[in-house]
Amino acid sequence: MYRIGIVGGTGYTGVELLRILATHPDVQLQAITSRSEQGQQVTAMFPSLRHCMDLCFTEPTIDSLRACDLVFFATPNGVAMTMVPELLQAGIKVVDLSADFRLRDAAEWSRWYGMTHACPEWLSEAVYGLPEMNADQIASARLVANPGCYPTSVQLALLPLLQNQLIELNGMIADCKSGVSGAGRQAHMGSLLAEAGDSFKAYGVSGHRHSPEINQQLSLYAGAPIRATFVPHLLPMIRGIHATVYVQLKDRNVDVQSCAESFYANHPFVDVMPKGSTPETRSVRGSNWCRLAYHVFDDGRVVILSVIDNLVKGASGQAVQNMNLMLGLPQDRGLGHVPLMP
Amino acid sequence: MYRIGIVGGTGYTGVELLRILATHPDVQLQAITSRSEQGQQVTAMFPSLRHCMDLCFTEPTIDSLRACDLVFFATPNGVAMTMVPELLQAGIKVVDLSADFRLRDAAEWSRWYGMTHACPEWLSEAVYGLPEMNADQIASARLVANPGCYPTSVQLALLPLLQNQLIELNGMIADCKSGVSGAGRQAHMGSLLAEAGDSFKAYGVSGHRHSPEINQQLSLYAGAPIRATFVPHLLPMIRGIHATVYVQLKDRNVDVQSCAESFYANHPFVDVMPKGSTPETRSVRGSNWCRLAYHVFDDGRVVILSVIDNLVKGASGQAVQNMNLMLGLPQDRGLGHVPLMP
Amino acid sequence: MYRIGIVGGTGYTGVELLRILATHPDVQLQAITSRSEQGQQVTAMFPSLRHCMDLCFTEPTIDSLRACDLVFFATPNGVAMTMVPELLQAGIKVVDLSADFRLRDAAEWSRWYGMTHACPEWLSEAVYGLPEMNADQIASARLVANPGCYPTSVQLALLPLLQNQLIELNGMIADCKSGVSGAGRQAHMGSLLAEAGDSFKAYGVSGHRHSPEINQQLSLYAGAPIRATFVPHLLPMIRGIHATVYVQLKDRNVDVQSCAESFYANHPFVDVMPKGSTPETRSVRGSNWCRLAYHVFDDGRVVILSVIDNLVKGASGQAVQNMNLMLGLPQDRGLGHVPLMP
Amino acid sequence: MYRIGIVGGTGYTGVELLRILATHPDVQLQAITSRSEQGQQVTAMFPSLRHCMDLCFTEPTIDSLRACDLVFFATPNGVAMTMVPELLQAGIKVVDLSADFRLRDAAEWSRWYGMTHACPEWLSEAVYGLPEMNADQIASARLVANPGCYPTSVQLALLPLLQNQLIELNGMIADCKSGVSGAGRQAHMGSLLAEAGDSFKAYGVSGHRHSPEINQQLSLYAGAPIRATFVPHLLPMIRGIHATVYVQLKDRNVDVQSCAESFYANHPFVDVMPKGSTPETRSVRGSNWCRLAYHVFDDGRVVILSVIDNLVKGASGQAVQNMNLMLGLPQDRGLGHVPLMP
Repeated sequence: MYRIGIVGGTGYTGVELLRILATHPDVQLQAITSRSEQGQQVTAMFPSLRHCMDLCFTEPTIDSLRACDLVFFATPNGVAMTMVPELLQAGIKVVDLSADFRLRDAAEWSRWYGMTHACPEWLSEAVYGLPEMNADQIASARLVANPGCYPTSVQLALLPLLQNQLIELNGMIADCKSGVSGAGRQAHMGSLLAEAGDSFKAYGVSGHRHSPEINQQLSLYAGAPIRATFVPHLLPMIRGIHATVYVQLKDRNVDVQSCAESFYANHPFVDVMPKGSTPETRSVRGSNWCRLAYHVFDDGRVVILSVIDNLVKGASGQAVQNMNLMLGLPQDRGLGHVPLMP
Repeated sequence: MYRIGIVGGTGYTGVELLRILATHPDVQLQAITSRSEQGQQVTAMFPSLRHCMDLCFTEPTIDSLRACDLVFFATPNGVAMTMVPELLQAGIKVVDLSADFRLRDAAEWSRWYGMTHACPEWLSEAVYGLPEMNADQIASARLVANPGCYPTSVQLALLPLLQNQLIELNGMIADCKSGVSGAGRQAHMGSLLAEAGDSFKAYGVSGHRHSPEINQQLSLYAGAPIRATFVPHLLPMIRGIHATVYVQLKDRNVDVQSCAESFYANHPFVDVMPKGSTPETRSVRGSNWCRLAYHVFDDGRVVILSVIDNLVKGASGQAVQNMNLMLGLPQDRGLGHVPLMP
Repeated sequence: MYRIGIVGGTGYTGVELLRILATHPDVQLQAITSRSEQGQQVTAMFPSLRHCMDLCFTEPTIDSLRACDLVFFATPNGVAMTMVPELLQAGIKVVDLSADFRLRDAAEWSRWYGMTHACPEWLSEAVYGLPEMNADQIASARLVANPGCYPTSVQLALLPLLQNQLIELNGMIADCKSGVSGAGRQAHMGSLLAEAGDSFKAYGVSGHRHSPEINQQLSLYAGAPIRATFVPHLLPMIRGIHATVYVQLKDRNVDVQSCAESFYANHPFVDVMPKGSTPETRSVRGSNWCRLAYHVFDDGRVVILSVIDNLVKGASGQAVQNMNLMLGLPQDRGLGHVPLMP
Repeated sequence: MYRIGIVGGTGYTGVELLRILATHPDVQLQAITSRSEQGQQVTAMFPSLRHCMDLCFTEPTIDSLRACDLVFFATPNGVAMTMVPELLQAGIKVVDLSADFRLRDAAEWSRWYGMTHACPEWLSEAVYGLPEMNADQIASARLVANPGCYPTSVQLALLPLLQNQLIELNGMIADCKSGVSGAGRQAHMGSLLAEAGDSFKAYGVSGHRHSPEINQQLSLYAGAPIRATFVPHLLPMIRGIHATVYVQLKDRNVDVQSCAESFYANHPFVDVMPKGSTPETRSVRGSNWCRLAYHVFDDGRVVILSVIDNLVKGASGQAVQNMNLMLGLPQDRGLGHVPLMP
């Protein structure tokens, strides 16, 4: 049994880690920290976990985590970077669900996140945790930067096409829609049911923090700079991301469907659906699946539909998938949740 | 044209007053105050009102309200009681949508609202603003205490039976369900879409602030002390209250339906539906209607179903109905909104 | 008072016409037909209209409509075309909310709607009822084809740019999201709350009936053939359409904001919001408004956000706006509904 | 590995059985029948199950089920009773999720379900499948009648109090609220998102089919006839039942909390929450838990709050719990789903 710690267990990615790890056969939850809730029973805050676990929140100190083999950070941006170096030096592996280690360029990071990076020298050590791209590197990593939710949905849609150099690099558009859990568990007015319910809107049109992450990764896969148009929208529901991605084939006769199916043949969590499919977010609810559908038009336009559960494949599920790889376990261990439908 | 002021225009009852008054033919909005937002355009906060009004928030001072004929308080509890006496002395009428003047007993008020009442001497001056009960008193009042949302739904269900002394006074139960807009526009975690959406729960079971108001009024109508069981629940939607009220007839042969129809025959906003009906909250959405259905069993049990829009008949619509009475206008003036369905 | 008839009053556009016409000062509802419900009180089917109207459904015959000045068709596709010629010949004006007269080309219509057009000779008589484009023609028309909901949201976004020839005609993308009321009131499994609630998906990717309508109109405005990419999606809510439209400026230095503001300066229902805005569907709920926001990037990409209530500006509200024009009334008569928020 | 069959796999209880059984360690799905869908891949209808199972729907014949150890009926009422006798005679155990074997009295059954019972002689053979009451009988049963969803939530609330004879038997009230999945997957207008979403109403006030089931069972536990008032309501969400039960203690000094905790101490799926709790339906979403909270007032009134997932503990989860008992497995085998929150 591997001993696992979670720093910052009171948000949605934290409680989702708890849900997943509670039934993982090879790990034992050792510590879960929260500065504000220390001493409180986890189940007093999250009654859904009653009788599934028996832990109290503790103070987030290095000492409280020293007995762990691996630590997850489910903290707001800016926290992990202040604790990660010491943990790594103590031989503890880290999966960071926040954005602290996602961008390669510290200056770029500072521009988007509004603070100086506390340990830019560790950015090159961090492996970007998209297992469909980086499984080997992740397996040998000490520090994994867990991808953002939107970037996961967009990258999985585009990976097969970019890796096979099938599409034009200009004019790529990702029109993305997310459930409101992506905004976190902090009380702010815009996320109230009476504000965000029964309505729909775009946000962050002029620039969203996931934009540089998407462009960094797509550029890497393409081997050329990409500046995609990315517009996020807020759905009046809790879980789920749907990305609608618009690209143009270089050669309109290429078999996109086969290309995608081959690319993902050996990946346990990406489902390339039959031609003509329109995946629903509920078809992945509570699970680590990404479902993709490729619609190709006779003039070479391609519309890609990509759905994930933003809290699972878009956050905590993918984090556990990364943990599995880092601990030498099968990457799907403990992640066999069948989607909850209806 | 009567000149109207609103103190505290940034919450849901405030913006609902704005929606209703924007098309009222006999009033002109003179001032709307907000300490936090003074100087800001109302429509910058509420884009739904763009091109419907052209006001800025101002500081909430007596001076800014002096030109008004009538002032609404759409403030948190505890604010109106500090400003109302001076307004009344200046000859300005007041409709208070908060709870400050709803209870007759200042000590009782303090117990439930956790503060000392600032002007207990004005409690006897305040008229309880349920027009179906008190229209004449309201018409001559200087200060009207607008009823709470739950108490409105429960009282309208019970009024005909209590006034006609048809039911047992013990064992009355009001199982009430409200949309989340009743919790206001303040950011707190429990009202987030990701918390209150897709779920249902009771709250305040051991004691809710609307409980003493309900008991005070029912006791008044019955001429005897009543201690009803009142359990509020939170619905995963924005607008609407549904009260399910359980009572016992003294004489099982009485014609409850006719009694209720007669009682409400001349009231413009209470609709006694045909026997066997099950009113939906959406059938009153956005309107000042209350719809009632009486189900009588052969053993004298009665189940009463009562629906209102908590922001209209449960708050701002009823407040405008009271204003109409106080200004000598027909009580339904400006309140002809047809419910929005679907 | 003009006498008005509605053919097919049991669907969502029918009941929305009833809601709007119930308070319209210049019209009187003369007849509302429904084959399946004839003889039934309208309010028995729609309790939200209780005490607002007093009509029964009648058989849909020409005779029952002969006393009308104008008749709305709120029927499934394929019905209006069988009755309209006779009504027109009887001197009765018609606004058709279905798709029967929206396409200029009868063969194209047949391909998309799967039936032969019953009166192709009347297609050229029909005026396309987008008042922001065709107000004069509508005013003198006998037969108006009320636009589809998606096409309305997309056209209003693009009209100023196309009319001023500011954008490239290739590569236009309309990523549209609609509430489920757009699917109508027929019982089919995909529209169940337990199916379409708490989920999100695209549909009709390979071809939706609103696609030829969009392309026909955009081509008309551009004076050149346009084949836009149109992908509709289903929102887990009832009312509202949000179109996110992606286009490319020819000259990146043009002032898009001013262009749009000027274009719509004299149109009563199109609100060009300030730069940087992200309109919410709820900001138009229950009203005839369309709100637009233009986001222009330094490389000439433009993202246009367009929201309407699909049942009002996307259907019945626009139909009444057309009626007003056809009857010589101000086009906003009876359409002053302030959006319902929250 | 036990071989399992499902008759009627296309409804919500059917697909929920599939979700649960897909990861059950001791069973293998042998056959799933559907008259309308025979030959079709299960995953074509339910994409959420892609890569989790590989079965096609088959014709519902006895022959197709002969190889099974146990068969679930997830069919509309009236189907199981025509097939069950033959299956039992072939030595196959049956759990019936429909209502066919829930009532002891065939005449009563006919009155409520509107048809003659096809095999009244088997009613006495059927064991009512509430494991918290009948675990031993279930373990030796050949035929188990799986309880209704509402009756499960109400019985679990009342069992400790009735078994210990703590409460008055007159005047019991169960005010119940259910998500819309309880209405099944049939297309009917009242369950459309545009009808049942964003609204709330009671239904079946004068008599619901779960009423005789509730009264039969409560009377059994009390040893005296009980006629409870039962009012079901429809929640604008998909999963979850909340029962609010009102009863009166005989002796107001009894310790209700301890009584309930003791009663359920050894039951794996009933959680008696701490005093003062208000359980949310989401705290059991997707799991087989029932959570209970007892609120006792000084005058002996008791308000009991009971939440279950109507598709799990209210249907398919409880059915698998019954299957486990019938097959000699631990009753919680394969039912360790942690609730999905948020």
